[in-house]
Amino acid sequence: MAEATQTQANIGVVGMAVMGSNLARNLASREGNTVAIFNRSYEKTQTVLDEHPEAEFIPASSYEEFAASLTKPRTAIIMVQAGKGTDAVIDALTEVFEPGDIIVDGGNALFTDTIRREKAVRETGINFVGAGISGGEEGALLGPSIMPGGSAEAWETLGPILKSIAAVVDGEPCVTHVGTDGAGHFVKMIHNGIEYADMQLIGEAYDLIRRGTGKTPAEIAEIFAEWNKGELESYLIEITAEVLRQVDAETGKPLVDVILDQAGSKGTGVWTVQTSLDLGIPVSGIAEAVFARSVSSKPAQRAAAAALPGPTANPVEDVDGFIEGVRLALYASKVIAYSQGFDAIVAGAEQYGWDIKKGEIAKIWRGGCIIRARFLNRITEAYAENPGLVSLVTAPFFTDVVATAQESWRNVVADAAHAGIPAPVFASSLAYYDSLRADRLPAALTQGQRDFFGAHTYKRVDKEGTFHTLWSGDRSEIESVDSH
Amino acid sequence: MAEATQTQANIGVVGMAVMGSNLARNLASREGNTVAIFNRSYEKTQTVLDEHPEAEFIPASSYEEFAASLTKPRTAIIMVQAGKGTDAVIDALTEVFEPGDIIVDGGNALFTDTIRREKAVRETGINFVGAGISGGEEGALLGPSIMPGGSAEAWETLGPILKSIAAVVDGEPCVTHVGTDGAGHFVKMIHNGIEYADMQLIGEAYDLIRRGTGKTPAEIAEIFAEWNKGELESYLIEITAEVLRQVDAETGKPLVDVILDQAGSKGTGVWTVQTSLDLGIPVSGIAEAVFARSVSSKPAQRAAAAALPGPTANPVEDVDGFIEGVRLALYASKVIAYSQGFDAIVAGAEQYGWDIKKGEIAKIWRGGCIIRARFLNRITEAYAENPGLVSLVTAPFFTDVVATAQESWRNVVADAAHAGIPAPVFASSLAYYDSLRADRLPAALTQGQRDFFGAHTYKRVDKEGTFHTLWSGDRSEIESVDSH
Repeated sequence: MAEATQTQANIGVVGMAVMGSNLARNLASREGNTVAIFNRSYEKTQTVLDEHPEAEFIPASSYEEFAASLTKPRTAIIMVQAGKGTDAVIDALTEVFEPGDIIVDGGNALFTDTIRREKAVRETGINFVGAGISGGEEGALLGPSIMPGGSAEAWETLGPILKSIAAVVDGEPCVTHVGTDGAGHFVKMIHNGIEYADMQLIGEAYDLIRRGTGKTPAEIAEIFAEWNKGELESYLIEITAEVLRQVDAETGKPLVDVILDQAGSKGTGVWTVQTSLDLGIPVSGIAEAVFARSVSSKPAQRAAAAALPGPTANPVEDVDGFIEGVRLALYASKVIAYSQGFDAIVAGAEQYGWDIKKGEIAKIWRGGCIIRARFLNRITEAYAENPGLVSLVTAPFFTDVVATAQESWRNVVADAAHAGIPAPVFASSLAYYDSLRADRLPAALTQGQRDFFGAHTYKRVDKEGTFHTLWSGDRSEIESVDSH
Repeated sequence: MAEATQTQANIGVVGMAVMGSNLARNLASREGNTVAIFNRSYEKTQTVLDEHPEAEFIPASSYEEFAASLTKPRTAIIMVQAGKGTDAVIDALTEVFEPGDIIVDGGNALFTDTIRREKAVRETGINFVGAGISGGEEGALLGPSIMPGGSAEAWETLGPILKSIAAVVDGEPCVTHVGTDGAGHFVKMIHNGIEYADMQLIGEAYDLIRRGTGKTPAEIAEIFAEWNKGELESYLIEITAEVLRQVDAETGKPLVDVILDQAGSKGTGVWTVQTSLDLGIPVSGIAEAVFARSVSSKPAQRAAAAALPGPTANPVEDVDGFIEGVRLALYASKVIAYSQGFDAIVAGAEQYGWDIKKGEIAKIWRGGCIIRARFLNRITEAYAENPGLVSLVTAPFFTDVVATAQESWRNVVADAAHAGIPAPVFASSLAYYDSLRADRLPAALTQGQRDFFGAHTYKRVDKEGTFHTLWSGDRSEIESVDSH
């Protein structure tokens, strides 16, 4: 390796945990790349060097050495755990880098941190790019979906490198310049939020079929495998079949029955809901999915609630019809989850001044990432047909999906309620759908109540202005100068 | 008034908008209180003086004069719009006040701001108390529910004053020392979150009865008036009857049909959900209520979605049975909203080190505030019987409520789904209930998926430890040293 240190690298990676080393190996495997690597403790760097001599990495034992090993403009991708560690690495790199160089944060940073960091780093003349990278450890190694933000200038240098390592679908790399500063991490956050909803919907479908029909996990695995041949084709449906098929070697039971049913999370689902609340976007499917995980992780409450009364179970009569109904309900609910997620992207873009191409986002999610799915092509087409589409579910293709599904969807939500099987995201998605298409909503009553107890005023359907009824007076209506 | 300025006041109010002047009038009307008042612009102060000579206010035209008019320890309640204005007033008061004096923020501050302010003010030796005040303008004047935080020392002086102006139920004033620093504003925030859920539940009940049975708003007003005589008795049910009864003078139509059905909000619902997400508490009913308001306020999306397909409506056959079912569903869902809200209070208390008496909170919500209701007595009793209650719905009284209601609750959620009438909080509350009491949740599948794509590991039901299946290897299971 002594000879290699003389060579110059066109890209560097900081952080040699699994994600970082896999991404570095991916980079090194592509024509034209020479990769410098650095880790806070050199042992990890040495291990990566020893295990992957084929990568011909250029190791560095200090930030100075790391900077010296990179051709200009220097480009480095940080792959460390999100949080304070990221700030420390950025500070160290800005000290050894020069104006025009590029620092990429490839971790799961909160997009507002990325906006802050980009602003601070920009003052040094160095480019800072927050890039969402999805696909887990395997994606990092073989081809992830990459969502970079940052400046157009940085994208010029960075684009070809990221395109070389991204997943490829229909000849197109799953990476695009999402928008400036925090746009990439924002879109990656929404991606993860949708992933929460998608996973919970699959969980509800599995639970309904299992408890409704008594089928075994192995039998349900075959159902998911079959679904994966149709319009639901996606990575998550595919791996669901794999997980349900798995038998625990120790007990001989299905693995899913041996796994403790308390779901963990890493925070991006929570961020998606909190951010969407700030933006005024109802991401109810994602919220219910996040809540479903938190309910599951309350063993003391669940133990106390185990004796709460439920209904008498009535087994499903038309098993095949029920399963097909669940499939359709899953599809329709999934359309709602994406529709809400894209609403959040549109609102975020408007709030933060990003020019985000919705169709491009659907395109780069087709490969590499966890929510990759056949139906993303339909989203790209919907936005290509109508770039000003105000709600994904109103695009003709998706309207057809819900038109076909809605009767089954309603039956499944009703059956779940009767049977006492929780289906929060199915139910929430349907309620959202019925709210959106409602001619009148009881929000008018809400406004009346708010005017009654807080003089919050209301608007009328038949004329402009802001009004207040003198509820504690003669109950006549007055026009209000300012709404308060 | 020249003579009055010689007198010393035992309490002062800063901010003479409606809430502030009403609270000042309330204070002045109670035996033993002399009230100093101050407003940034003196005109407002003058107006209040002119309109309410009976209050014998001591006006001040500067902070110095205001401080000089107060007996020690000086006690002042700030009633200005939450935000930067509050900080400016606090800064001004800390300059003219002395150690041992008390500054109370009676606005709707975010509790983390209150924690920050309390810490900063405490360094000057002055006491800072964040106090949630509920009941709107009328409550401020006649007797609100008050939720003060801050130190025990401040409570000694402040307690008697606040008790003198609070609403009284069964001889007990609706005020208690909630806990230190931000505890009061935290509990007030949760109160508002529950209010969102409660109002949305009433809206859903109204919408279901109206669209399900074709009854008029005036007829439904009578139903709510009837409900208000029973276990649902509460301020919100009472005013719902009033609002539904109201006829628009201009058109002769029911007012609720003339009000634009786009609900506004002031942010505390959003805060409740965002905070609960940070605390890991599933406040799904509150979240769905917040989302319902935001869906209603998207006219462009609603217009585009108006043509989305819905079901063919089947009119309800047993009208009285249906209405009684809606009443029971409303009651059960309300129990869930409170159960989730109290979970958030418990989690907040643990996170921020507050010693919050849950039963006391229910007690002080019985009067003065928007969510005042007969059934709050049952919550107080439940926590008195079992202070360590892990979930409100598992208390015997509330378990009986849901046992009686559950069949109707299930029918109503199912009917709403079939009829295409959105009932997001009814549905979400039922799904939460069924999640909580479920023997097994599909969270086990979620954990399996997370282990598959991200090596996030899982725990087992049958032994300690953290495990990972080598999904891309030979699919054997390994024990993981650290979960990541």
